[in-house]
Amino acid sequence: MPLLEFDIIKQYFSKITTQKNVTDIHLGIGDDAAIVSVPGNEQLVVCTDTLNAGIHFPENTSAFDIGYKALAVNLSDLAAMGASPKWFTLNLSLPEANAHWLAEFSGGLQQLAANYQLELIGGDTTRGPLSISITLAGHIANSQGLLRSTAKVGDKVYMSGCTGEAAYGLACLMGGEKPSENQSYFISRLNQPSARVDLGLRLMGIATSCIDISDGLLADITHIADASDCGIKLDLNAIPLPRIDDVDTARRYALTGGDDYELVFTVPVSRQITLDKIAEQLDIPITCIGEVVTEKGVKLFDNNTLVNLPVAGYEHFSA
Amino acid sequence: MPLLEFDIIKQYFSKITTQKNVTDIHLGIGDDAAIVSVPGNEQLVVCTDTLNAGIHFPENTSAFDIGYKALAVNLSDLAAMGASPKWFTLNLSLPEANAHWLAEFSGGLQQLAANYQLELIGGDTTRGPLSISITLAGHIANSQGLLRSTAKVGDKVYMSGCTGEAAYGLACLMGGEKPSENQSYFISRLNQPSARVDLGLRLMGIATSCIDISDGLLADITHIADASDCGIKLDLNAIPLPRIDDVDTARRYALTGGDDYELVFTVPVSRQITLDKIAEQLDIPITCIGEVVTEKGVKLFDNNTLVNLPVAGYEHFSA
Repeated sequence: MPLLEFDIIKQYFSKITTQKNVTDIHLGIGDDAAIVSVPGNEQLVVCTDTLNAGIHFPENTSAFDIGYKALAVNLSDLAAMGASPKWFTLNLSLPEANAHWLAEFSGGLQQLAANYQLELIGGDTTRGPLSISITLAGHIANSQGLLRSTAKVGDKVYMSGCTGEAAYGLACLMGGEKPSENQSYFISRLNQPSARVDLGLRLMGIATSCIDISDGLLADITHIADASDCGIKLDLNAIPLPRIDDVDTARRYALTGGDDYELVFTVPVSRQITLDKIAEQLDIPITCIGEVVTEKGVKLFDNNTLVNLPVAGYEHFSA
Repeated sequence: MPLLEFDIIKQYFSKITTQKNVTDIHLGIGDDAAIVSVPGNEQLVVCTDTLNAGIHFPENTSAFDIGYKALAVNLSDLAAMGASPKWFTLNLSLPEANAHWLAEFSGGLQQLAANYQLELIGGDTTRGPLSISITLAGHIANSQGLLRSTAKVGDKVYMSGCTGEAAYGLACLMGGEKPSENQSYFISRLNQPSARVDLGLRLMGIATSCIDISDGLLADITHIADASDCGIKLDLNAIPLPRIDDVDTARRYALTGGDDYELVFTVPVSRQITLDKIAEQLDIPITCIGEVVTEKGVKLFDNNTLVNLPVAGYEHFSA
C-alpha cells in the first residue's frame, strides 16, 4: 500500500514542532498557507536553498544526513545575517514514498529543528527526482542584520573553524583522494555541517559584515570585497588547514573547498578583544586571516610575497 | 560560454521587482538572506508549491507558462486565505542554463508578479532535473485569515468559475480525449490558471471558510468538511460544467479534475446578497452548489436522489 501525500505529512512532518514558538505560529501545517506573527520591532529574515541528489550530495547519502544538511545550509545563511531562526517550509520531491527513508529524513530534520526550536509551518510533497528545497525565516531587531556589503577599510577579517574539510570528505567518498585517517571526521563535516547560528547572533554590533562559506573561502570572501566595494588582503600562513599530510593539498582545499558553512566576517580593530571573549564563551575557534584594504580584489600573501590564487569555488553552471 | 549562477540571477530574476513594496523589503536578492518588514497589526501568510517537469506539467510546456503557473498556484493558496500577496522566493533546478528558456520563464513569472506588485526577494538556482519551488508570503490583518476549518452548519457552499477545464485541457494535450473546439481555452486554463486573489481579499468577513481547488472540487470540498468537522451536501445540477458535448464526461471532469485554482467557500445565508454584489463588482462568476450540514461526509444529490461520488482527485503518491 503506497503512502499518500497527507499520510506522509501527518506521519513524518507534522511532529517537527517544538511547541515553543506557538505564540508566533498562528496556523501551521494543514491549510492552504501558514500564518505567522512578527513582533513589531523586529524584521523577518528569509533564505532558501535547494539540495538535489547527485549534485549537492552523493546518491548514496543517508536520508538522515540529507534531512540534516538541507536544514543546516539554510541555518547557515541566517547565521550569516545574525538572525534568530524561527520557522521553515519544506518542498520535498521523491521518486517514491519509502517509509524507512521518510523516517530517517524527517529524523535528521527534526534533530536540527529541535536544537534551534524551529517550527515546520508548511510545505509541498510531490513525486519527482529527489530534491529538497527549504525556505527558512528568522527574526532580527529592526535594521540590525549583518550584511556582506558593509565591510570597512581597516577592519580585520576573521573566520570560524576550518574550511576544506567537507570538500576533502567528498573527495575521499568519491575516490578522488586516497583514504585518510581523519576521513570519517571529514565526511561528517560534509554530511552534518554545523551552522554557526550562535556565533552569528553574537556578532551583531561586533562584525561590520558577514557571509557564510558555502562556495569556498576565497569565493565567499570575494563576495564581501565586491559587495563592500573594497579589497581584502589574506595571510596564507594564518588560514587554518584541514588535517591532511600534504600542506599544498591542505591549502588548496582550505582556500577553494565549499560546503563547510563556517562564517567569514569583518571586525573593527577596536572590537577584537570582545570578539575573542565571544569565541571563548561559545567554544568556537576563530582566526584572524587578513584585513580589509582600499585596493579592490582579494589578494593572498605568503609572508610579504603575493601568491597566485587557486581556482575558485564551486559553480553550478560552469562547463 | 555557459551562464553562471550569478549571471542568471542578475540577468533574469533581479528585475522581478516593482519597486512598489520597497518600504517592506529592507534587503532583497544578493545577500545570504532577504530582510522584510511586517506592519505591527498584520500577520504573515506563507505558502509553498513545487512543480516538477513531467509530473505537474507536460515536458513540452512553454517556459513562459511554467513560470506563470509556478507563481499562480501559490497565489491561489494565498487567495484561499484572503491574504494580500507581497513577496516570494524561487528555487529553480535546471538541467542546463539555456538563455532563451530563462528569458521566457522569467517573463512568465514577471508578468504575474507585476499584476500583483510582488517582489522576488531571494532564491537558489541549481543544476538538476527541471523543478520549480516557490514560497510566497502575504499579509492579513491580525487573525482575519480564511481557514478551511471554520465552516458552519447552515452555510451555503459557493465556488468561483468552473472546474474540470484544466484537466480536460491536459487530457486533450496527452491524447486522452479527442480534440474539442474549446481545446485551446482549456489548455490555457491548464497553463495559465487565474488565481482568485481579488475574490479572496473580498471574502474576508463574508466567507466562514475557504480553500482553493487544486486537487479537484470533491477532494477539496472534502478537506473543508473534514477540517470543519461537518458534512457538505452538493447539488449535482448546480455545479458549473466545462463546455464539453457529453454531459457525463463534463460532470466527471467538473467533480474530479484538478488544477483549475478556483475557490470554494462557505457563506452564511445572511451574507448571500453582499456576496452577489462582490461577484458582480469583480466580474467573477460564482455559483451556490450546496450547503453545510451536520452529518459528516460529502454527499452528492441529483434532485433529491443520492448519487455515487466519482473517484477522487489527483494524488501524487497513489499507485
